[in-house]
Amino acid sequence: MSKPLGFEKPLGMRDILPDLLEKQRWLEKRVKACMKQWGYQEISTPTLEYYDTVGEASATLDNRLFKLLDSEGKTVVLRPDMTAPIARVASSLLKEEPLPLRLMYSANVFRAQRNEAGRNAEFTQLGIEYIGSASVDADAEAIALAVSVLKAAGVKVFKIAVGHIGFLEGLLEEIVQRLEDRERLKEFLYHRDYVGFRHYVQGLHLSRENAARLYELLKLRGGKELIDRAESITVNGQARKAVTNLRQLWEALEAYQVEKYVLLDLNLLRNLDYYTGILFEGYAANQGFAICTGGRYDGLMARFGRPCPATGFAVQMDSLLEAVDYQPEQPSKFLILYSAEQRMEALERARKLREENSAVVIAQRKEELAALDFSQYAEVIDLTEEEASWR
Amino acid sequence: MSKPLGFEKPLGMRDILPDLLEKQRWLEKRVKACMKQWGYQEISTPTLEYYDTVGEASATLDNRLFKLLDSEGKTVVLRPDMTAPIARVASSLLKEEPLPLRLMYSANVFRAQRNEAGRNAEFTQLGIEYIGSASVDADAEAIALAVSVLKAAGVKVFKIAVGHIGFLEGLLEEIVQRLEDRERLKEFLYHRDYVGFRHYVQGLHLSRENAARLYELLKLRGGKELIDRAESITVNGQARKAVTNLRQLWEALEAYQVEKYVLLDLNLLRNLDYYTGILFEGYAANQGFAICTGGRYDGLMARFGRPCPATGFAVQMDSLLEAVDYQPEQPSKFLILYSAEQRMEALERARKLREENSAVVIAQRKEELAALDFSQYAEVIDLTEEEASWR
Repeated sequence: MSKPLGFEKPLGMRDILPDLLEKQRWLEKRVKACMKQWGYQEISTPTLEYYDTVGEASATLDNRLFKLLDSEGKTVVLRPDMTAPIARVASSLLKEEPLPLRLMYSANVFRAQRNEAGRNAEFTQLGIEYIGSASVDADAEAIALAVSVLKAAGVKVFKIAVGHIGFLEGLLEEIVQRLEDRERLKEFLYHRDYVGFRHYVQGLHLSRENAARLYELLKLRGGKELIDRAESITVNGQARKAVTNLRQLWEALEAYQVEKYVLLDLNLLRNLDYYTGILFEGYAANQGFAICTGGRYDGLMARFGRPCPATGFAVQMDSLLEAVDYQPEQPSKFLILYSAEQRMEALERARKLREENSAVVIAQRKEELAALDFSQYAEVIDLTEEEASWR
Repeated sequence: MSKPLGFEKPLGMRDILPDLLEKQRWLEKRVKACMKQWGYQEISTPTLEYYDTVGEASATLDNRLFKLLDSEGKTVVLRPDMTAPIARVASSLLKEEPLPLRLMYSANVFRAQRNEAGRNAEFTQLGIEYIGSASVDADAEAIALAVSVLKAAGVKVFKIAVGHIGFLEGLLEEIVQRLEDRERLKEFLYHRDYVGFRHYVQGLHLSRENAARLYELLKLRGGKELIDRAESITVNGQARKAVTNLRQLWEALEAYQVEKYVLLDLNLLRNLDYYTGILFEGYAANQGFAICTGGRYDGLMARFGRPCPATGFAVQMDSLLEAVDYQPEQPSKFLILYSAEQRMEALERARKLREENSAVVIAQRKEELAALDFSQYAEVIDLTEEEASWR
């Protein structure tokens, strides 16, 4: 029993101390309350899943999955996201429930970290999944709820960038013949390497007009006016359908009165083969990482045997913590100092203050005084002093 | 991408559906609010820890640890409890903070399950650690807070059984010479095998008087009166010190006015070599599993290089869920049905109801009516009907 133990933690794992955690809990509460008000019901799934079920179905790249071997030598993963586990539950335990399902979660998810660079391997996501509706109204609800969540959390300046995978793929198909070239171009967009994209387009020996259309794609960022411009550069059926979809979406977002938070970004691409329609990312002012990410994934549920359309989004707690500089107010914290014979009185005072929702720490003056950090208390009630002054 | 996926989960892992999770979240909120009012601050630690740090320091038996191999072949564990990780944090990140530390947590912990018997491998614990005080007042605070937590959670009838490892070990040392025999007797107590204990005592060839003292130990369950009886059967220094300790504890519990919830149980033994003084378990009426367990562990902090006394307890959420039959009231949930041209009106109504903290689901009548389960809504607002009746 006496061997000294180290403090090491697995790479990317971290402890969260009270001040930061207090802020996180406050944000969780605000975000969850908002999702509930929109009719979403919380569910919970295991931290550990089999690699060949949830691991395979996840949108997370295979080399980012946190893989482990269990005692039987089977590969398991610490869940990389909640979308795949919820699709599993919606297709099994909840398979008799009528669609649409509106489900929400608050959970820790995991990513393998391969070097010491200090990125987190475990982090909190809160999100919703709206399963069973192909309607653009469902996409609009997801985006409007994301706006509502960020406002409820106290993010002051933010934008939701909205793209459409159907438009992107339709346009590329119309202009670029080889699948391989289209895949490469998507990879450039995925990595936001617009220089690389332009360079690759130059090498494709397209007509000047077609190359111009691809360069125009890179500029397709803006408001409602963009929809007409997008329509003008393609005749492809899939792309045209996507444009109609976006037009209906914008109308719905106007009905929600959230269009001022939305920026269309038609070269937005989040994952190479997971999303199937409208997709989006939320950014706070001056922040590099997305606070929330989401979109339509009509292909996932079929993999678990209950084919149906679905959309959803997740909020990254770490980004949200950075975007919100408000530190929630704590209930007043009191310190009651007492001597041995004053215990009854100290406990009675503590009981009353706690009933009024204050936090109270009690300490026998003689034992603990030296170590006490008085700065953390709103008020120090020193019963031994009070007694002294009565004498 | 098209291979159909299974629904299998690793042994003992489970999904939690909305009704049960709602109740759990409600209980978590009550329990955490109570711990905060007693001045405890929440911290969070990683789900995954190294076996040779936290795994080794844990009170959990080695064969119950949820061990896995990471990508480098190192043995990691899904944390078996929060006491060892918090001791690690208190000895590293918080090592400059003056003692005592009052820390709390709400976290999922893990146990390996070896068969299909259906016990959970992942479950939620909420608890506190009071680090840095050897005083019996700290033990009393832990027990009184446990009482307060169970009351706040709505457990109507419960008892906290309180034992003392020092009394038990002192008495055995005084009567039974061989260490091996004492260890065997402790194992019988640990497994609550009182028949086995008596049988083993018979085989020890003790004097009639000494055997009687050991049998008397088994009967040492009751209220304050038990303390004198305990004192009468031993002259061992350690045991006598434990009796004095229990006498002071009882006095403190009376000051907290919680003695009516407490039952002394001097043959209580929870772990063979982890606890070092007062230890306790809370039970609800008619329940086999403990709702909360805790005690003094003065040896753990030294293993992480910051030697100091400590006490604490953990509440088992699954037991608490069983002990409380109250299903928390939900905010009213509304369903608003609308036709395409009524969207603005539907969204406006939804916005207002949500502002009043109601939950609102909206649905375009024509699309989703067939599937809707009306029973879950407090009220259905059918805008298409309202319109019809105006005509």
